[in-house]
Amino acid sequence: MQQLSALPHSYKLVRRESRPARTVVRLNNGAAFGTDEIALCAGPCSVESREQIEATARAVAAQGANVLRGGAFKPRTSPYAFQGLGHDGLKLLRDAADRAGMAVVTEVLDPRDVPLVAQYADILQIGARNMQNFSLLRETGEAGKPVLLKRGVAATIDEWLMAAEYLLVAGNDQVIMCERGIRSFDPATRNLLDITAVPVLRALTHLPVIIDPSHGTGAARLVAPMALAGIAAGADGVLVEVHPDPPSAASDGPQSLTFEQFNALVRQMDRVARALGRSVPASLAA
Amino acid sequence: MQQLSALPHSYKLVRRESRPARTVVRLNNGAAFGTDEIALCAGPCSVESREQIEATARAVAAQGANVLRGGAFKPRTSPYAFQGLGHDGLKLLRDAADRAGMAVVTEVLDPRDVPLVAQYADILQIGARNMQNFSLLRETGEAGKPVLLKRGVAATIDEWLMAAEYLLVAGNDQVIMCERGIRSFDPATRNLLDITAVPVLRALTHLPVIIDPSHGTGAARLVAPMALAGIAAGADGVLVEVHPDPPSAASDGPQSLTFEQFNALVRQMDRVARALGRSVPASLAA
Amino acid sequence: MQQLSALPHSYKLVRRESRPARTVVRLNNGAAFGTDEIALCAGPCSVESREQIEATARAVAAQGANVLRGGAFKPRTSPYAFQGLGHDGLKLLRDAADRAGMAVVTEVLDPRDVPLVAQYADILQIGARNMQNFSLLRETGEAGKPVLLKRGVAATIDEWLMAAEYLLVAGNDQVIMCERGIRSFDPATRNLLDITAVPVLRALTHLPVIIDPSHGTGAARLVAPMALAGIAAGADGVLVEVHPDPPSAASDGPQSLTFEQFNALVRQMDRVARALGRSVPASLAA
Amino acid sequence: MQQLSALPHSYKLVRRESRPARTVVRLNNGAAFGTDEIALCAGPCSVESREQIEATARAVAAQGANVLRGGAFKPRTSPYAFQGLGHDGLKLLRDAADRAGMAVVTEVLDPRDVPLVAQYADILQIGARNMQNFSLLRETGEAGKPVLLKRGVAATIDEWLMAAEYLLVAGNDQVIMCERGIRSFDPATRNLLDITAVPVLRALTHLPVIIDPSHGTGAARLVAPMALAGIAAGADGVLVEVHPDPPSAASDGPQSLTFEQFNALVRQMDRVARALGRSVPASLAA
Repeated sequence: MQQLSALPHSYKLVRRESRPARTVVRLNNGAAFGTDEIALCAGPCSVESREQIEATARAVAAQGANVLRGGAFKPRTSPYAFQGLGHDGLKLLRDAADRAGMAVVTEVLDPRDVPLVAQYADILQIGARNMQNFSLLRETGEAGKPVLLKRGVAATIDEWLMAAEYLLVAGNDQVIMCERGIRSFDPATRNLLDITAVPVLRALTHLPVIIDPSHGTGAARLVAPMALAGIAAGADGVLVEVHPDPPSAASDGPQSLTFEQFNALVRQMDRVARALGRSVPASLAA
Repeated sequence: MQQLSALPHSYKLVRRESRPARTVVRLNNGAAFGTDEIALCAGPCSVESREQIEATARAVAAQGANVLRGGAFKPRTSPYAFQGLGHDGLKLLRDAADRAGMAVVTEVLDPRDVPLVAQYADILQIGARNMQNFSLLRETGEAGKPVLLKRGVAATIDEWLMAAEYLLVAGNDQVIMCERGIRSFDPATRNLLDITAVPVLRALTHLPVIIDPSHGTGAARLVAPMALAGIAAGADGVLVEVHPDPPSAASDGPQSLTFEQFNALVRQMDRVARALGRSVPASLAA
Repeated sequence: MQQLSALPHSYKLVRRESRPARTVVRLNNGAAFGTDEIALCAGPCSVESREQIEATARAVAAQGANVLRGGAFKPRTSPYAFQGLGHDGLKLLRDAADRAGMAVVTEVLDPRDVPLVAQYADILQIGARNMQNFSLLRETGEAGKPVLLKRGVAATIDEWLMAAEYLLVAGNDQVIMCERGIRSFDPATRNLLDITAVPVLRALTHLPVIIDPSHGTGAARLVAPMALAGIAAGADGVLVEVHPDPPSAASDGPQSLTFEQFNALVRQMDRVARALGRSVPASLAA
Repeated sequence: MQQLSALPHSYKLVRRESRPARTVVRLNNGAAFGTDEIALCAGPCSVESREQIEATARAVAAQGANVLRGGAFKPRTSPYAFQGLGHDGLKLLRDAADRAGMAVVTEVLDPRDVPLVAQYADILQIGARNMQNFSLLRETGEAGKPVLLKRGVAATIDEWLMAAEYLLVAGNDQVIMCERGIRSFDPATRNLLDITAVPVLRALTHLPVIIDPSHGTGAARLVAPMALAGIAAGADGVLVEVHPDPPSAASDGPQSLTFEQFNALVRQMDRVARALGRSVPASLAA
């Protein structure tokens, strides 16, 4: 690849050539990242209450979602915005996931919180703002749990792979790369979802790659076409915000899908995935 | 759409609400932009010789491509780069398309060349560098031929729609919007193909929208996944560079597909299109 | 320069090394670009009336401004915005400049208008949107008049130098480079004025370089600090929008200085210029 | 200011209107940020040895530099790059500063290191990668020491001010804003130093603002013109990398000034500052 060969490529452990096969991240409930089955991660931006998170888990699991997302520690641009329920949020999230047969992915913000979050989560998420928080990367890399590494809003592909390299150097190769939109000059969307990152990463690294069309667009009506685009481009999974009542959400309401919208999207994703020899998970309710 | 409502929206004629239905651009050979059938535009970056353009036309038409692309007047960053065959290139392009049953799309750079190019082309292309060349927009808008309007590399969606508005104000509503990649901070790819522009335009305008994954990525191995992504996101067509021998191309070799690669891509595009209730054109050779 | 050495550098005639000394562009009224005297270009965004342009010319010439700017053919994002007075505007601009002893710089948009504009202007301006309008570059390069080449909003330094190369290849080496702000992700200002372009160009080319802090910021209160910054960084001149009554301007009112603001700015520019061994022109009224 | 009024402005404590006067950050050795005297922060990227840091401190203090910079904990894109001397580096930095009569600014990367770094530093630096590391911001805000807050490479002015707001909410109003270059599409320089941020911040906040032309450009020959530009635009100080032997530096050699280059720069800065009614500090050696 002419352009790609211009990249510094000083990373080693994440390189595609360093492994005989692509890395597959498998969770206890059967969810997998890096196989022919698309991983479906869904849930609200923030855990708000037992009712909210349990209703969401039931609804998305019934459609095949196998990983529940939800923020307990929230990184917010403003110190005056809702900061998450913290430890209580982690408990609610774990309970809701267990009842629905789902795994849990949730963000950790502070290296001192890694042991606590690792107690409740199946996957530790490093958010976009912390992609180059090297203390957090080191601590998370040593926690013995899979890590979902979001791309920073202004990170080059090369810098993103170097951040993953920090995790692998720390001894953890269960890393999932997540494209979630980068910064552009156009205010038409909240971020610019870089779908090309999917085939670029598939060429450069053995790690699985997923997309987050919710943060990637900031608008609910754009989530479905961009989720489908990501799958068509080769993504190993999607991370989608779903809320029982988006207008009342404590954060990210404008980009959250209703249960009905999520159901319709899963049906479409399954058709596109099958056209390319892949599939979405069977409903856990079946 | 929350974010989208923040756009200036001072354009009028291109607004979705200004028409009862989406605009369909239909050409004499049956090709259409804006229907359930995906328009397939393919061909070399530059017309180089009779052999090159005729071989390419035959090969891509056999796979269903219904519009032949090829540059006769080339906008080049360097004054020392190949500038195209000019009038001779137009003749070769028209002949090759006619023999293969295809329509012609080719770029016009200078308002004084509009009548000449319109004599040979079915669609006049305004390139990314000229998206805000208002003299050229006015002259092209009055030529009575459909126009393919590429997005400028740093144009917002709003500015792009305003450029289209210039064409409609001039009396021409046969306009096809073409996303071809925008400028980003990451050197991993030549441009950043903004797939989100597809659903955003589908929401804002009645005009058809297609994508150019060749210029949009700059690397042949990224063309197929991004063409599929564009179709999954709702694009009405693709514009793909194909060359009999990419390494010997006078321009854009690294991003051109071979005939074999194009054939494989069309089969995949058809599967994805059908998963979403659309299709690619039947082979003209059949 | 480590980073700069990575540039393609395929331009030839504009390279610093191609000339024994820096190019100086001298006009009939004594204004010069590329000497120890800073060139002061000032005037309204658009020529609106005889009264407006003559009052402005008198006011800015009294402070030392030696080049009058003013748009007669205006490139506007919207087809519904004021498009300029055209030929009438050119006449008013020339008359006003002559009465005040100033030279004229004004934009040409269409290759067919080059002879007309060259009849009235001392410097032909290529605007940011047309930096890669190669037909216009060629025609302007052959007109026998100095050219002010604005940087495109998403043009790299390398592409900008290549655009200048088109002018020199056409036989014109009287070219002034003008930085006027590039596109960024931050909506705080209209554009992002890239002051670093000044020392970068001083290192790479023999051509004079000026800055336009009016378009570069979009806000009148930012014009003075950025004009001073440009001079401190080594700019050979400034291009500033001045209007008798900014709130009533037909275009760009928010970024236009009043006469009083311009007077204060010239005094500050002179102090900063003298601190670095340069100066601003003496008042033509003196 | 038309454009600026469009900013969200949801910050409160950092707003200019929240204080009767600009904030001045004063250090024990007399250095001040926010007065008519320009603060001169200089030193190597990384503390490498006692000899290196002491020689640098002596050399820059002799020219008037009153704050010694030097990294002990280094945030590096690659896990294989030099990570700094840690606690030993802090001791060497403190000793060198004390002998030269200088204050110390150094970066803290991990909330757990705040007490340690605060023991040695007069100013705690939050680096660009950590501008939205909210755990670090809270911990640093409570440490009782002035904070130098660098702008993130893709942070809007608004987000940067919100990050400062986190520090003020934590009870610390001794905050210095430092522009150090943002991400752009042009590879000509390492970053794009946004000089306009200086007058924008002067308009929006009471906090002092300085610039870092070393990281802001990545090239030694661009440091001087951009430092002068920053002062001309109203900056309250500069942060410049100086090294006894740039080619042998463990990090950032290409952008580091030699002692001689720094001396020449200080003389120029003084002239530009005096032209605008300000000055640089008198030599501590005098």
